Amino acid sequence: MAILSAKKLRLELSTSRIEALTDGVFAIAMTLLVLNFEVPNPMEGRGAMELHRTLATLWPNFLHYVESFLILAIFWIKNHQQFHFIKHSDSKLLWLNITSLLFVCLIPFTTSLVSDYGNMPIAAIVFEGNMLVAGLAYYLLWRYATKDRRLVDSNVDDRVITVYRRSSLVTPLISLAAIAVSIFHPRVGTSLYFLIPFILLYLRRA
Amino acid sequence: MAILSAKKLRLELSTSRIEALTDGVFAIAMTLLVLNFEVPNPMEGRGAMELHRTLATLWPNFLHYVESFLILAIFWIKNHQQFHFIKHSDSKLLWLNITSLLFVCLIPFTTSLVSDYGNMPIAAIVFEGNMLVAGLAYYLLWRYATKDRRLVDSNVDDRVITVYRRSSLVTPLISLAAIAVSIFHPRVGTSLYFLIPFILLYLRRA
Amino acid sequence: MAILSAKKLRLELSTSRIEALTDGVFAIAMTLLVLNFEVPNPMEGRGAMELHRTLATLWPNFLHYVESFLILAIFWIKNHQQFHFIKHSDSKLLWLNITSLLFVCLIPFTTSLVSDYGNMPIAAIVFEGNMLVAGLAYYLLWRYATKDRRLVDSNVDDRVITVYRRSSLVTPLISLAAIAVSIFHPRVGTSLYFLIPFILLYLRRA
Amino acid sequence: MAILSAKKLRLELSTSRIEALTDGVFAIAMTLLVLNFEVPNPMEGRGAMELHRTLATLWPNFLHYVESFLILAIFWIKNHQQFHFIKHSDSKLLWLNITSLLFVCLIPFTTSLVSDYGNMPIAAIVFEGNMLVAGLAYYLLWRYATKDRRLVDSNVDDRVITVYRRSSLVTPLISLAAIAVSIFHPRVGTSLYFLIPFILLYLRRA
Repeated sequence: MAILSAKKLRLELSTSRIEALTDGVFAIAMTLLVLNFEVPNPMEGRGAMELHRTLATLWPNFLHYVESFLILAIFWIKNHQQFHFIKHSDSKLLWLNITSLLFVCLIPFTTSLVSDYGNMPIAAIVFEGNMLVAGLAYYLLWRYATKDRRLVDSNVDDRVITVYRRSSLVTPLISLAAIAVSIFHPRVGTSLYFLIPFILLYLRRA
Repeated sequence: MAILSAKKLRLELSTSRIEALTDGVFAIAMTLLVLNFEVPNPMEGRGAMELHRTLATLWPNFLHYVESFLILAIFWIKNHQQFHFIKHSDSKLLWLNITSLLFVCLIPFTTSLVSDYGNMPIAAIVFEGNMLVAGLAYYLLWRYATKDRRLVDSNVDDRVITVYRRSSLVTPLISLAAIAVSIFHPRVGTSLYFLIPFILLYLRRA
Repeated sequence: MAILSAKKLRLELSTSRIEALTDGVFAIAMTLLVLNFEVPNPMEGRGAMELHRTLATLWPNFLHYVESFLILAIFWIKNHQQFHFIKHSDSKLLWLNITSLLFVCLIPFTTSLVSDYGNMPIAAIVFEGNMLVAGLAYYLLWRYATKDRRLVDSNVDDRVITVYRRSSLVTPLISLAAIAVSIFHPRVGTSLYFLIPFILLYLRRA
Repeated sequence: MAILSAKKLRLELSTSRIEALTDGVFAIAMTLLVLNFEVPNPMEGRGAMELHRTLATLWPNFLHYVESFLILAIFWIKNHQQFHFIKHSDSKLLWLNITSLLFVCLIPFTTSLVSDYGNMPIAAIVFEGNMLVAGLAYYLLWRYATKDRRLVDSNVDDRVITVYRRSSLVTPLISLAAIAVSIFHPRVGTSLYFLIPFILLYLRRA
């Protein structure tokens, strides 16, 4: 029996496999957001007037749908940007990524919660807490992968590492602010996420 | 620290990644259309007669299912045809594509709505409005990518650009007509989409 | 403006794209079969005894789940075997494949229907009709692609074409038999599908 | 007509195709776990107090969600590690993999069951039985593929085969222990799965 290095036994999954699972999970989480909309139960004798009213009440659901779709898209783009530079994987990176997916998969639920109870602080805070933890996972994943250029190319520029680390903090910081505001004004708190595109645009230009 | 061009920091996602997410979203949106059919609640004492009646009422649901499946397939084919020529991506293209997906993901909901309330103008118009916006997103995406051959190969034929731009307008124009008709005859309005294959076939032959 | 052949304008989607969408749809249809199982509503005061009884009633649901999973797996394998030989695609092939997916996506619904109403001929016949049409789509797809070796390699053996055509007919023929039997004995009719693996094994050995 | 070897007619699906379907199924099963959380029905007059209480009752659901996500991730990693070494496929391997997916797809249902009825032995045992069978499928798949190096590279080290076989047994053995414990203490039984990461870490270091 050949002698086998411990390293060889600890097989690492290729980053392309991790990305395939991640793409699948994001595609499904985005599509499941639609379950946030419920078709009103068709009953005999319900008139056009009533359907108009019911559809009008779906308006906040639509805004929350757009918001969560936007945040999911930003996370997905971040993940791809990070894996553009990450060339190797190890067990910790894999589990950091799985942890991020665990909270990404919760987003359809917390979106649904905040759509139905948008005026209650607890619902807003659960939603924002979800985004905080998912966002932090991406921040930690990047920190871990770039520490001493552990899993990225050795010639990756310092500025790339810094810029990406900073932009990874945008969602967590907005989430902290949103939680603080939501204690008193949940609807204002959850609206803060619409600032993210402007902040990212500003960071990019800076 | 090396000087890094702003361009290098603005990493663009490869078009293959965008296509992978898009394929996933379309596969799920198509499959979720089936949630449009609800199995009648099995209760004690419900006879075969009643099941027959219930299944008969699902007939319009089936037609709407086929219609939305057809439209989704046409959008998917269009997206792939476009990305066959698009060789580069930038931030605006990415967000135009995400916007198209945002409205594609709504289709299972608006299909369900029009299936249950097919005789009400408002339901038909919401469905057709959904198709209008999704279709426009593909038109704008193509306009943006081909303007001065921004993101397509420089040797793409003018006629390809024109033909594809024109065929991108079929769904939006049909949607406008459908909305106008649906104000008075919602069932006729939503049926107009079945004309699309014939129009596309005609455009191709022309 | 360059002269462009009509052929070049009629861009054909690569078979790999078609396969990617197909894989996605099958993965989701398989997973959605689980919606066939409903967790009984937890109510105060409901005892262990009652949960046992409810779970026992899920037994036929499990059998139907296994049956539909098996049929979906057979369709998926057939699709891949066919696309192993199909080297080109055209518009008709694309739409034949989309038609097959349209009926594949219905399977979670018709499975749910037959699970809840297994003793009613109409439910069994709807399920079997679904399988009949989906199966026929794969038969027609193969017929179309291999006619005069239209879309397959020119050196594909005649026997491959014949063997695959014959095996494509197994599910449609079983479905016809199942429909006939289900008029009187729906539970027997839907069980016939469990014969498919044995028939395929027999055809292979023959 | 050319003579065709029986082998050529028995076309084997490439392992990459099998992996694509598997990745899709896992991504969806993980995401469907979120259906485990139900947004309480928003009714007029329901106060913040009541929403707090309802969310508090979701706490065990969250733990079960994390648990099932963890187990699915472990199965997915195992599947990829195995297919890293498996170079060929045959009909039996294909069906062993499909069998594993059949039980993977059930996990969202059994998770939902144990979340709602966590204090009832039968619910815990159904959940653990699901994990037992799914885990065994991966064990058998590896046994089958490595027997006489049937489907793996001929120069795969004996130790790799042994180490992977042993680690494949962790989930089934934990499941057996969990079933035994659950007869009396269902909540303790289902908690045993949280030991798996520590056991795998220990096996790796050993």
